[in-house]
Amino acid sequence: MINVGVLGATGAVGQRFVQLLADHPWFRLTTLTASERSAGKRYRDVVKWRLDVPFPETIGDVLVSPTSVSSLKDVDIVFSALPAEIAKDVELACAGAGLAVCSNASSHRMEPDVPLVVPEVNPDHLALIDLQRDRGRDGFIVTNPNCSTIIMTLALAPLCGFGFTDIRVATMQAVSGAGFEGVPAMGIYDNVIPYIGQEEQKMEMETLKIMGKYENGSIRPAPFQVSASCHRVPVLDGHTMAIWADVREPVEKVKEAYIRYTPPISGLPTQPKESIHYMDEPDRPQPRLDRNRCNGMTVSVGRIREGIRFIAMGHNTIRGAAGASVLNAELICSRKYL
Amino acid sequence: MINVGVLGATGAVGQRFVQLLADHPWFRLTTLTASERSAGKRYRDVVKWRLDVPFPETIGDVLVSPTSVSSLKDVDIVFSALPAEIAKDVELACAGAGLAVCSNASSHRMEPDVPLVVPEVNPDHLALIDLQRDRGRDGFIVTNPNCSTIIMTLALAPLCGFGFTDIRVATMQAVSGAGFEGVPAMGIYDNVIPYIGQEEQKMEMETLKIMGKYENGSIRPAPFQVSASCHRVPVLDGHTMAIWADVREPVEKVKEAYIRYTPPISGLPTQPKESIHYMDEPDRPQPRLDRNRCNGMTVSVGRIREGIRFIAMGHNTIRGAAGASVLNAELICSRKYL
Amino acid sequence: MINVGVLGATGAVGQRFVQLLADHPWFRLTTLTASERSAGKRYRDVVKWRLDVPFPETIGDVLVSPTSVSSLKDVDIVFSALPAEIAKDVELACAGAGLAVCSNASSHRMEPDVPLVVPEVNPDHLALIDLQRDRGRDGFIVTNPNCSTIIMTLALAPLCGFGFTDIRVATMQAVSGAGFEGVPAMGIYDNVIPYIGQEEQKMEMETLKIMGKYENGSIRPAPFQVSASCHRVPVLDGHTMAIWADVREPVEKVKEAYIRYTPPISGLPTQPKESIHYMDEPDRPQPRLDRNRCNGMTVSVGRIREGIRFIAMGHNTIRGAAGASVLNAELICSRKYL
Amino acid sequence: MINVGVLGATGAVGQRFVQLLADHPWFRLTTLTASERSAGKRYRDVVKWRLDVPFPETIGDVLVSPTSVSSLKDVDIVFSALPAEIAKDVELACAGAGLAVCSNASSHRMEPDVPLVVPEVNPDHLALIDLQRDRGRDGFIVTNPNCSTIIMTLALAPLCGFGFTDIRVATMQAVSGAGFEGVPAMGIYDNVIPYIGQEEQKMEMETLKIMGKYENGSIRPAPFQVSASCHRVPVLDGHTMAIWADVREPVEKVKEAYIRYTPPISGLPTQPKESIHYMDEPDRPQPRLDRNRCNGMTVSVGRIREGIRFIAMGHNTIRGAAGASVLNAELICSRKYL
Repeated sequence: MINVGVLGATGAVGQRFVQLLADHPWFRLTTLTASERSAGKRYRDVVKWRLDVPFPETIGDVLVSPTSVSSLKDVDIVFSALPAEIAKDVELACAGAGLAVCSNASSHRMEPDVPLVVPEVNPDHLALIDLQRDRGRDGFIVTNPNCSTIIMTLALAPLCGFGFTDIRVATMQAVSGAGFEGVPAMGIYDNVIPYIGQEEQKMEMETLKIMGKYENGSIRPAPFQVSASCHRVPVLDGHTMAIWADVREPVEKVKEAYIRYTPPISGLPTQPKESIHYMDEPDRPQPRLDRNRCNGMTVSVGRIREGIRFIAMGHNTIRGAAGASVLNAELICSRKYL
Repeated sequence: MINVGVLGATGAVGQRFVQLLADHPWFRLTTLTASERSAGKRYRDVVKWRLDVPFPETIGDVLVSPTSVSSLKDVDIVFSALPAEIAKDVELACAGAGLAVCSNASSHRMEPDVPLVVPEVNPDHLALIDLQRDRGRDGFIVTNPNCSTIIMTLALAPLCGFGFTDIRVATMQAVSGAGFEGVPAMGIYDNVIPYIGQEEQKMEMETLKIMGKYENGSIRPAPFQVSASCHRVPVLDGHTMAIWADVREPVEKVKEAYIRYTPPISGLPTQPKESIHYMDEPDRPQPRLDRNRCNGMTVSVGRIREGIRFIAMGHNTIRGAAGASVLNAELICSRKYL
Repeated sequence: MINVGVLGATGAVGQRFVQLLADHPWFRLTTLTASERSAGKRYRDVVKWRLDVPFPETIGDVLVSPTSVSSLKDVDIVFSALPAEIAKDVELACAGAGLAVCSNASSHRMEPDVPLVVPEVNPDHLALIDLQRDRGRDGFIVTNPNCSTIIMTLALAPLCGFGFTDIRVATMQAVSGAGFEGVPAMGIYDNVIPYIGQEEQKMEMETLKIMGKYENGSIRPAPFQVSASCHRVPVLDGHTMAIWADVREPVEKVKEAYIRYTPPISGLPTQPKESIHYMDEPDRPQPRLDRNRCNGMTVSVGRIREGIRFIAMGHNTIRGAAGASVLNAELICSRKYL
Repeated sequence: MINVGVLGATGAVGQRFVQLLADHPWFRLTTLTASERSAGKRYRDVVKWRLDVPFPETIGDVLVSPTSVSSLKDVDIVFSALPAEIAKDVELACAGAGLAVCSNASSHRMEPDVPLVVPEVNPDHLALIDLQRDRGRDGFIVTNPNCSTIIMTLALAPLCGFGFTDIRVATMQAVSGAGFEGVPAMGIYDNVIPYIGQEEQKMEMETLKIMGKYENGSIRPAPFQVSASCHRVPVLDGHTMAIWADVREPVEKVKEAYIRYTPPISGLPTQPKESIHYMDEPDRPQPRLDRNRCNGMTVSVGRIREGIRFIAMGHNTIRGAAGASVLNAELICSRKYL
C-alpha cells in the first residue's frame, strides 16, 4: 500500500478524490489538506459533503492539514484538486520535495516536460517524467487534461488510425464542472450559458498535446485543427458533446472501430471494464442515464452519422477530473515511475 | 380587416397563434378549429391555456369548429398549426377552396412550387405562388421552415455576401418545440437528449431551399453544405445554436455586418424593431434572458469568434413557428398576393 | 429459492422491481409480464430501460409473458406493478390460483381482509391473510400503501407512543411517482403543481388503516385525523414532506425517540440498516442527497421543531413502491405465510 | 411628480425596483445607489441586468451614487433594497434627514412605531408614522413584510371575518428570493432544501403584527398562532404555499368570500386590477403560469378544501418585495403622509 494525500479535499473535485480513494486497493489515503481555517479539525467536521454517495466514514476522522508541502511528509503520491492559481507553486514545491504529483489543475498542463496524460490515449507520454528528473528533482508532476478534453480525446482514440484534419466540437457541459458554488441557479435554470471561461482554448490546445507524438524527449503536437464552442446547460453531472471528426470513412467502419477498440493499458484498478461504450440506440448517450457507467469512468459514444459526426458523453468530475488523476497515478505505479 | 382562422388552435403552436392574432391590426381572428370532440364548444372551455401570458378573453367565446375546409367559409387566410400528417390533405383542400394557407407544418415545405419563406431572408420566393395559381387553383400554400432552420437562416442572412461553403450547426433546443406533452419530465430533467427526429434533415434541406435562388419559376438550391447535430436540453422556450459559418473574414468585419444589417422588408406589424440583435457581452445570448426580445420575434446573435463561429438564439414557438407564419401572412398581404 | 414474477415489468415501478429482484438472495425472478404486444419477446428487447443503474443483464433474456394468471404457473409470489384499473381483476385471479400477490396497486388496499402493510409499522396486520384463506382460496393479496403514505407512516412510527390527534402533512413529490411519461416537462419545469389526483385521500385513509389495531380478525382504524395537501415539484426521485404531528413533547424527547428507534422486524434482506435515519444538520434531509441512503430503503427525518413539526423524505419508487412490496414478500416468507 | 431613489439598485430586488419605477406615473426615479466601487459610473455600465424584461434604457444613464444619505438630497422618497445589516443604520439616517423610507429590508419591521404594511390588509397601520414624527424627526420608515408573509396575509385577508385560531403554512419558495447568487444550481437542481434561514420566524411574527389591531398609538398583535415550515424548490420566481386556515366554514362560503372580496384601497397605480385572483381549476395556481398576473402584483388562490385548506401563490420579488414597497409609497402619498 502506498500512502497518498489530497490537496484541496473539501471542494467538488476534492470530495470526488476522497470518494475514489477511501477504499482503494493500492493507495492508503492518509492526508487531506484544506485552507488554514480547517486545519487541525476532523475531515467530517469541516467538509460539507454534497455528493449523492454516502460519506466515507473511514476517512471522517482524518485530521485536515494546511495546504503546504510540510503536511505531506508521510505520503508518496499527492493528488491536486487545487484551483489553478494556488496549484502552481504548491505542486512545484511538492515535486521538489520528491513527491509524485497527480494534478487536475491546469497550471502545469502545457509545460514542455510535464506529461498531460489520458492513460488510454497517450500512456507513453509519461516518459517526460525522466526529463523532469534530469532537472535534479526526484519528484515530478503529471497532469490530466481539462474535463471536456479528456472525454473528447478518449472518444477520438479509436478513430486515430483514420487521421484527422479538422475537429469541431460543441459541448453541453454540466454545472458541477464549475464547483459546488460555481453556477447560481438563477443563471442556469431554464437556460443555456454559451460561454465557459478559457474552456475552448483548453480543448483546442490540450488536445493537440495529448494526441501529439513523443519523440526524443519532447512532444510534437498533433498536426490537425480543433475548433470548440463550449456551453453550460442545466445538467448536474456529465458533459455531452457533438463532435465532427472529419473522417472520410463509412459510418459502419467507424462503428466497427469503436466496437473493436481495446485500450493500450490493462490491470489498473480504476480502469473501467469498458473505456468507451458504444451505444446503438438512436437517442443515446444521455448524461442522466449513462454518466455512472462503470462508476463514472466510461465514456459513452453514439449517434455516429456521416461526416463523421457523433455524440460523446462522460462524467466530468469522475472520468473528467478525480478519476482521471487516480488512473494516472495507477499508470505511474504500474510503469514503475514511482 | 381580413378575417383569418387557425387550424389546430388548442395545441402549443395553436395557442401561440391565438396569442399573436387576438389583437392584430390587420387580421380579425374569427375561426378556430380543433378535433371533433371540441367542435361546437367555446374556445375558453376546450383549451387548456398553458402560456404564461394571460388568456385573450376577447377570443374566449369563439365557438370551435371541426378541422375541415367547410369550417373556413368566412376567412381569407388560414394559419395551420396542424401535425404534418393531418396538415397534408387539409391544407391542400383549403388552397383548393381559394384560401391563402400560411402553414407551420412540414408537409408541403419541400414541394417545388410551395414557397418556404423567412421574410427577412427570401421574400422574393413568394413568386412561387403564381405557379400554384397557374395550376388552376386560386388559393395557395406558403410555408415557414422548421423552428431551428428559421433561427439559423435569419442569423446567417447578414453574412450571405461573404459566401458559404460548409455550415456546421449544433443546436440546444427547448422542450416546447415538441408540444406541451411532447417531452416527459423524466426524459429531459437533468439531462440532454442528443436526438430530435428528422430535425437534422430538416435543417440541412430546408436551409438550401430558403437560401437558394428563385429563377424562371423555380428555386435553385444554395450551393453549400449544411451538417447539423440536434439536441434537446432542459429549457422551456428558446433554441440556442452554435454555428460554424466557414467564412474567411476577420471577426470585426463579421460583427460589422451584423450591426449594419437591414432586412429587405418593412412596415409589417409583427416584424420586430430588430430582426437580429447583436450582443457584445461575452456570455450572451441566453434563452431565458433574451428569448422575449421584441415579443419573441428577434433572433439574438453573439460570441462571434474566429472560424467564423457564433451563437444564435431565438424563441422557437414565436419566431420559430406561429410568429413566422403570421409574418409570412403580412408579407403576402403587403406584396398584394391576396 | 422461491420463484417469483413481476406483473407490468416494463413501467417505472416494474423496472424498479426487476432491479431489486435481479440478484435477490431468496427470490429467483423467472417471469415478467407486460402488454400483449410485448409477449413472446425478450425483456431486453421490449423494455426501454430508463433507470440510472445498469440494466440487469441476467434478466435480459427472460421471455416476456402476457399479463394473466396463466403466465405465472411456475411462481409462488407475484409482484404487481400494474395500474389500479387492470390490477383489480388480475390480482384476484392470481390469489384465486394460489399465488401470494404483493401489490403496489391501490385497487385492494382498503378491503377489510387485505393487509396494507409497512413491515416496520404494522407487521401483525399480515394476520388478515388467514381471513382471505378462510374464504376458500389458498393464495392471498398483501398490499403496500401509496408512496407518500409509506414514507409518512414510517416517519411517524417512532412517535406512536406519544399519541396523535391531528396530523397535517404537506408533500413535495417527485415526478417519477407518476411514471415515466406521467408528467410533461412543460408542466413541471420551473413550476409547482399543487394537485395530485386522489393522493390526499389515499394519505388520509391509508394512514388510519396502517396505524390501526388488528383485533379479532379486523382492523380498527387509528383514532386520529390526517389532513394532507399534496404537491408535485421539479424533483426526479424522492418525496419530501413537512409533517405537523401534534405531539406535546419537547423537541429533545422527540429526537431521542428517533435515535433510539428499533423496528419490530429483522433479518429481511431488503430491510435497510436504518429504517429511519435521523439528521441533525439544519437543512436536511434533501431528496437529491439523501434518497439513495441504504439503496433507497431508508426514510430520512430532520428539522424537528416545536409543534412537533419535522421533515421526512424517502425514495418514492424504491421505499415507496417496489422496495416496499419486496420487503412485504420477505416478511410474508419469514413469518411463514407462504 | 415626486423624485425618488433606490438604495441597493443593482441586486435582484434593486433591479425590480428600477423596472417598476422607470416609467411610474407619480414618481421620477432620479437616484440609484450601490457600493463604493460602482459610484460615479452610469447605471447601465455597472448593473448586470438579469431580469427577463428589457433593460429600461431611460434609466441607463443615471450616475450611480454611494449608498449614504448624502446621495439623496433631491429625493423625497427612498426605496430600500439593502441587506438587513446595512439597511439598519442607512434607513435611520435617511428618516432622520426627513425622507420617507419605504423599505423591503427586515431590520426595522418589528419596531413598535414602524408600520409593517400590506396596503390591502392593514392600511390604517400607517398611523404609526405620527409616532415616529412625534419623536422629532420629519422623515419616517415604512416597511413591507417578508415575501412569504405578504403573500400569505393577503391570501388570508378575505377570511379575516371568520376568525383564526391556528394557522399552519408550508411554503415552496422560489430561488430568486435569495438574490441572484443566493442559491447555487448544485444545491437546488433536482432537489428541495427544507430550510430557509429565519423565514419561519419572520412568517410567524410578522403575520401577527400585520393582522393585529392599531389602538391608541400601538399595534396589538393578532390573537392567533402561526406555525410555518419553509422550503426552497427549483422554481425561479413565485412562492407557492399550502395554508391551513382553521376556519370552520363550508368550502362554498369560503370561495364566496374570495369572489366577493374588495380591498380597502383604490386608485393606486401599482395596485393590481385584482389583488386576489380566485381560481377554480383543480390544479391551480401554479407559479410558472400565474406569477405574472397583473404584472406580478396579484396573489392567486385556489384548491379550497375542507379544513379550510388552500393554495396561495404570488410573485416573490414583485408582489413580495419591490412592488410591495412601491405600493406602500403610493398609499403613503394618497393618505397625505408625505
